[in-house]
Amino acid sequence: MTDFTPPIRDLRFLIHDVIGLQTVAELPGFGETSPDLVDAILEEAGKLAKGVLAPLNRIGDQEGSVLDDNGTVRTPTGWKDAYEKFCEGGWQGISAPEKEGGMGLPLLLGAAVGEMWHSANMAFALCPMLTSGAIELLTIHGTDEQRALYLSRMISGEWTGTMNLTEPQAGSDLSKVRSMATPVGDGTYRITGQKIFITYGDHEMTDNIVHLVLARTPDAPNGVKGISLFIVPKFIVDTNGKIGPRNDVKCISLEHKLGIHASPTAVLSFGDKGGATGYLVGEEGHGLACMFTMMNNARLAVGQQGVAISERAYQQAVAYARDRKQGKSPTTGQDDAIIHHGDVQRMLIRMRATTEAARALSLYAAAQLDIAHHHENGNTRKSAQSRADILIPMVKGWSTDLGVENASLGIQVHGGMGFIEETGAAQHLRDARIAPIYEGTNGIQALDLIGRKLLRDNGVAMHILIDEIRGALIGDFTDADVTHTAKTLGQAVNQLETTTNDILARCANGAELAQSVASPYLRQASICVAGWLMLRSLQKLANINDNDGFAASKRLNCNFFFGQVVPEAQFMASQIANTKDACLHETTPLF
Amino acid sequence: MTDFTPPIRDLRFLIHDVIGLQTVAELPGFGETSPDLVDAILEEAGKLAKGVLAPLNRIGDQEGSVLDDNGTVRTPTGWKDAYEKFCEGGWQGISAPEKEGGMGLPLLLGAAVGEMWHSANMAFALCPMLTSGAIELLTIHGTDEQRALYLSRMISGEWTGTMNLTEPQAGSDLSKVRSMATPVGDGTYRITGQKIFITYGDHEMTDNIVHLVLARTPDAPNGVKGISLFIVPKFIVDTNGKIGPRNDVKCISLEHKLGIHASPTAVLSFGDKGGATGYLVGEEGHGLACMFTMMNNARLAVGQQGVAISERAYQQAVAYARDRKQGKSPTTGQDDAIIHHGDVQRMLIRMRATTEAARALSLYAAAQLDIAHHHENGNTRKSAQSRADILIPMVKGWSTDLGVENASLGIQVHGGMGFIEETGAAQHLRDARIAPIYEGTNGIQALDLIGRKLLRDNGVAMHILIDEIRGALIGDFTDADVTHTAKTLGQAVNQLETTTNDILARCANGAELAQSVASPYLRQASICVAGWLMLRSLQKLANINDNDGFAASKRLNCNFFFGQVVPEAQFMASQIANTKDACLHETTPLF
Repeated sequence: MTDFTPPIRDLRFLIHDVIGLQTVAELPGFGETSPDLVDAILEEAGKLAKGVLAPLNRIGDQEGSVLDDNGTVRTPTGWKDAYEKFCEGGWQGISAPEKEGGMGLPLLLGAAVGEMWHSANMAFALCPMLTSGAIELLTIHGTDEQRALYLSRMISGEWTGTMNLTEPQAGSDLSKVRSMATPVGDGTYRITGQKIFITYGDHEMTDNIVHLVLARTPDAPNGVKGISLFIVPKFIVDTNGKIGPRNDVKCISLEHKLGIHASPTAVLSFGDKGGATGYLVGEEGHGLACMFTMMNNARLAVGQQGVAISERAYQQAVAYARDRKQGKSPTTGQDDAIIHHGDVQRMLIRMRATTEAARALSLYAAAQLDIAHHHENGNTRKSAQSRADILIPMVKGWSTDLGVENASLGIQVHGGMGFIEETGAAQHLRDARIAPIYEGTNGIQALDLIGRKLLRDNGVAMHILIDEIRGALIGDFTDADVTHTAKTLGQAVNQLETTTNDILARCANGAELAQSVASPYLRQASICVAGWLMLRSLQKLANINDNDGFAASKRLNCNFFFGQVVPEAQFMASQIANTKDACLHETTPLF
Repeated sequence: MTDFTPPIRDLRFLIHDVIGLQTVAELPGFGETSPDLVDAILEEAGKLAKGVLAPLNRIGDQEGSVLDDNGTVRTPTGWKDAYEKFCEGGWQGISAPEKEGGMGLPLLLGAAVGEMWHSANMAFALCPMLTSGAIELLTIHGTDEQRALYLSRMISGEWTGTMNLTEPQAGSDLSKVRSMATPVGDGTYRITGQKIFITYGDHEMTDNIVHLVLARTPDAPNGVKGISLFIVPKFIVDTNGKIGPRNDVKCISLEHKLGIHASPTAVLSFGDKGGATGYLVGEEGHGLACMFTMMNNARLAVGQQGVAISERAYQQAVAYARDRKQGKSPTTGQDDAIIHHGDVQRMLIRMRATTEAARALSLYAAAQLDIAHHHENGNTRKSAQSRADILIPMVKGWSTDLGVENASLGIQVHGGMGFIEETGAAQHLRDARIAPIYEGTNGIQALDLIGRKLLRDNGVAMHILIDEIRGALIGDFTDADVTHTAKTLGQAVNQLETTTNDILARCANGAELAQSVASPYLRQASICVAGWLMLRSLQKLANINDNDGFAASKRLNCNFFFGQVVPEAQFMASQIANTKDACLHETTPLF
């Protein structure tokens, strides 16, 4: 496995030039986010990612986290030390509120830094990622006491957090949650049940773990409205945060997974000795609504895993292609590195161009979330929120699909060596494969986009986005690549509008048809929106003094994206147009 | 992991109705290949695949083959018994000549049976697959003595065969082979060197292993013309085939791979004690030419692995989707199996439709090889050979890419359970991932198609194929689906012709450009040719009494293929048209 080089040059370009730092720096509370601070944060995070986390990536894959005979989950060699360094840097709290002990920096920056953690070591980075979700949830829904007790300790990294949603019968469909929460009478609840797929559900890196658990109160209505949210700490703590007795929750097994071996995926059993003590968060029956408040950030983070693995897989593939000699150069007749072979270049540039496009999309979405959360003008907040609502399923769905595709291309570039585990290329595919599944499968993302985000507002938010993209295509461009690109994007956006209107018309009364076209629609829309940001990137290159070749590389990648990736949007549009009704009827045999 | 159900219904339909058994049964020597015999063979092979090989697939993945401290390669539990049963059935020799002890059946049937072996247990089936290559090679190039000594024992399965091509510095580029073969003076050679990635390079299932080894004779010219081919048996045998002393070749390690764990991928060292005894096959300097004679069959077989894994992954996914309940049915309000969800159906039908299309393509190619090898008319043989030459890179490249894509979709259908190794879905992706790499990477396949098969004959063979497809589109079809499909295919074929002419014109003087467009061209052409066979399938449905729902399912899959898969050909054509010159110049930075 090759070293990891943090993609700071591209992150800086996207934040400063393409997204525009001022769009978030001008928000209340973010005034100190100067360009210099951003650069310093990226540099420092990059050092930790490269120097501490990345070297543990392969070790983590080989050793995995293990549940020993004492019921203790052992993380791989080096994990605890790395976690301490991570906490020393204050990184867990990068986007958490200052008043709770966080750095209070924009999500835009937190997202940029988060991508580097995932590139360096996705299995490690899952721990702070889950804790961030718990932090966000308690920041909004926790009582003063809950925040005082748990929040600052999670922001510092002293304790980690988990999300306990899934049960064997309740995955995408959380209405099927059966875990019970019975009021004890003293304000606490007794939690019983079994949760599966709990990321970092147990470990020994910290003194305590704050489980956030969905469970059903007695007499609660069926379905999602009967579900409440509870804090269930691994160890009960007193009001000063002093660790007390072990709570009645334990890890009964870890899953044996395709990838992210180092991330302990736990089956947690609550209440084997009568019931774990739980503390209600928010109101009874509002558990799923509470969870929804953190969903956008969590899905953004998972989308970034797709970007992150694409980046890492690319770096590894390009290093191999530079080094590996096969065949002769047609010009010199000498042994030639395979990076000079046209088909290898095609694969590498595809990896590079799609990674950069997906990165731009994810950072743009992060900035929209910053505006949605912090802008002083309510209408601006609302517009940004509805923009982010559209973008998030694209970031999560498209980027994680690309993560798998790019990791697979990375293997292909290596030829036979790619299939050998010691090379490290295969790990990226194994790790990447979870991201289209968790935090809402990509099918769920597509249904979210087409259902909640498109059909529910009759396409208003999507049409505003389409119009904004179209506005960027008008102008008297001096750069020939920009002119050509704007024309290509214009065609794709017109097609997106046609497809959108077609779906609005045909799916108004047919949820089944929407289900059948949702995934290609997500991909079509993602390509168009990312294309808009790639066009903007191309336009901003004029400002760059290209002493490091960055602008030449970005131009190449943008042009490749428009020539080789954007035409896929038309392919998706054809799929949608050709879907005449729901794919199948219940009576049609599959084979 | 679910049971494996051999796809005998589809294989029979394709052989009898779509390809037409008579096209091969009328060839000299194949007169006994009656429809009944074909059906009996498929049934018997299906029983072995389902009952013996498939149950070992997961065990093989978990245990793997292991090199023990004594230098012995141990295959997984049950392997040796399964291999014995395989040999008892005479399956190794299904397509080998009768006069050498084989069944002498057409490759069309051998290919259909081979697909089932790979579906059931790809890691197992690799052993007979490699032996088949060795059999074919010695059948054509071996001396009478070599055939008498080795061939019948390989055809019976008493001994297995291996292909020793790759060395650390010589992968796709075999001109870099360094292994040496020094004449001893008694007609034998002393072989020294190291070979890597040798499939079933060592094992204890048989008393002997016949290694076919590429090596360089002293004073041989550089490059491929200096390479010769040798038989190097694991144990030296006397003229009666009696096992003698161990030859100077040993397995020094096994690779730790992403998938096909049960298939021992060996590093073989030749000549640690002075030199292994080798016997020249064919003439000195003709080693690579000899290898080329088996290349079409070997590439066909690897392409079938893609079909096979797609089939297995589909069966597993559809079983899970039928069983797994999430969400409510919009019609009944009851808990609903996810197979009724539109997006899940989309994934399942994509898997099913592409599997059937790729299967049709592979069997059609097999029939062309039968004609090329056995037809009494020389011109017919030549035409069939040039048709097969075009088809083989498509079968190998497209089918194995589909194998990876479909195995990945299979995981996705499973949601979180797909990422858990015990489920078995992940193994299919891990196993499938090698097929685009070995037996010539898919990049090499694409270069073969565009270089050797298209540019070299100035497109003649491809234009003949295009014209033949076009001929199938003319007619007064009574079936509305056929009419619509013929129109869709007509557009795709016109586009293929345009793209082909464009490539012929633009690549005449530019091999670099050809390298950059080769992969999308392979995919575009594959979709069109497979589409032709899907159209023919649709037309043949009229003859079927659909008592088992097969025709309804096939119709669904054909219609899906034309609506959802064929539009990708246009996407590929756009990529090619948008590639203005070679992707990159040596001076362009990649990032």
